[in-house]
Amino acid sequence: MSEDNFLFDKIAIIGVGLIGGSLGLALKAKGLVRTITGIGRTIENLETALSLGIVDEITQDISEGVRGAGLVVVCVPVLKIGEVIKKALSGISAPCIITDVGSVKKGVVEEVRGMLPESVEFVPAHPVAGTEESGAGAAFATLFKDRLTVITPGPHTSAEAAASVTKLWTEAGSRVAVMDPEEHDRVFALVSHLPHVIAYTIVNTVASEGSISGSGSRKAIDYSAGGLRDFTRIASSSPEMWSDICSMNREYLVKVIESFEARLSVIKSLIASDDYEGLKEKFNMAKHSRDSLD
Amino acid sequence: MSEDNFLFDKIAIIGVGLIGGSLGLALKAKGLVRTITGIGRTIENLETALSLGIVDEITQDISEGVRGAGLVVVCVPVLKIGEVIKKALSGISAPCIITDVGSVKKGVVEEVRGMLPESVEFVPAHPVAGTEESGAGAAFATLFKDRLTVITPGPHTSAEAAASVTKLWTEAGSRVAVMDPEEHDRVFALVSHLPHVIAYTIVNTVASEGSISGSGSRKAIDYSAGGLRDFTRIASSSPEMWSDICSMNREYLVKVIESFEARLSVIKSLIASDDYEGLKEKFNMAKHSRDSLD
Repeated sequence: MSEDNFLFDKIAIIGVGLIGGSLGLALKAKGLVRTITGIGRTIENLETALSLGIVDEITQDISEGVRGAGLVVVCVPVLKIGEVIKKALSGISAPCIITDVGSVKKGVVEEVRGMLPESVEFVPAHPVAGTEESGAGAAFATLFKDRLTVITPGPHTSAEAAASVTKLWTEAGSRVAVMDPEEHDRVFALVSHLPHVIAYTIVNTVASEGSISGSGSRKAIDYSAGGLRDFTRIASSSPEMWSDICSMNREYLVKVIESFEARLSVIKSLIASDDYEGLKEKFNMAKHSRDSLD
Repeated sequence: MSEDNFLFDKIAIIGVGLIGGSLGLALKAKGLVRTITGIGRTIENLETALSLGIVDEITQDISEGVRGAGLVVVCVPVLKIGEVIKKALSGISAPCIITDVGSVKKGVVEEVRGMLPESVEFVPAHPVAGTEESGAGAAFATLFKDRLTVITPGPHTSAEAAASVTKLWTEAGSRVAVMDPEEHDRVFALVSHLPHVIAYTIVNTVASEGSISGSGSRKAIDYSAGGLRDFTRIASSSPEMWSDICSMNREYLVKVIESFEARLSVIKSLIASDDYEGLKEKFNMAKHSRDSLD
């Protein structure tokens, strides 16, 4: 393969977990980068990434690892992104593009904005993909195939840098949409963060309320069929990652929880008062919206 | 095949939809019944059932269809079970066992209890299985494989009748558990009815709150990834069926909705006050419970 195919000569991935590792594999599979440096906190995970061919070299030292990289991809929990970028900036040799994969954008953009020297660009990004697994061992090259990546370019982002990061994600198999950070956070509070909060809450409800008298250790949750299993799969997601996201997107998330609570209260009243037609209408509305997703 | 293998010479299935149709196919596949009569309201669905080999004869007349059947399986929405059994009793030739497949048991048992002549037994049952599809065309023989069927025998149920219905469901591939009707309704309010109510509510929240300014017709729901899709699959279930279930299990369902609301309110407060450790603890509890389901 000609070197001309390389999108970047060297990229550094900080945090080689499910997302960072899968991006590494996708770029390797396409031959889009000569060298990937994997940077992380735990040597075991980095060694896994190295042995799986996700990265070519590993280090626990951020400023050392980013040296010479044309692109630095920050794949750490959202509350850590600012701190990690600060460390990276001490080792970065300009020109360089920094991008992230955080599920919340407004807070990240605000945190990073003041830090950047002129020769370093920041392209905030959010690949909307994942599984309930984590770590380099869970990574796979097609994780982003047919998925969406949202980028939220700002004053700190040149058109060229945005185009490079767009190409990175389209080459990894993803569609790319542009949003502003506030809109992004409002939309994902609804379609992603709220569902996770609800899934965690319902599992706690079932687990806590579900003791069955006289049945030994058997619990209500043991009687759940596929429905509850699918419904609560996202409650197996990383508690740390989701606490971070809830904290970072607090403002919008509390609003959508309140909207959900108001709607649930209406449904509860319809059930309590046995308003059969009113209830069926709400369920019909939901089925109509849900069916449009398939 | 010897006739000795027949569990029943003739059974009648009232309501040949996903559940009734799949039971018919499972029994046919095992050669457990000589004749299955399909009874239903709409001739189109009955003709589909006949052409798919689910049933051997069809009729829209309940009392005619049940004549001579040793087993009558009532597979209609829970609010209709009492009325359908009443009609069936006018045609039943004793001895006969009636069973149902309703997702709520206490109200059904109470409704049916007073109707039964001595020579007719009632074995309330709930096969915990289903998809979001409905109708005979969606039926398949392995729907109950490795699933659970709960039976809630009462004073109206002899040990022999309970054993026959247990055999019916184990032959169809299901495990069978015995519970009392109240316990059943409390458990399924938690593990099945609450999740459906929540799924319908969250879809309505996302659909209603999700308009995006300046994006034309694009809505928040369009940005949802696999997470929301899996999470809300059950919101594609039949609004009629679920309105029926909510109505029939009103008492327990309102209680578990209230318990869920209290827990969600705690989580919301933890997010609003940025109590990171408190939030992570709740998420950890949920992940621990959910992981035990796999």
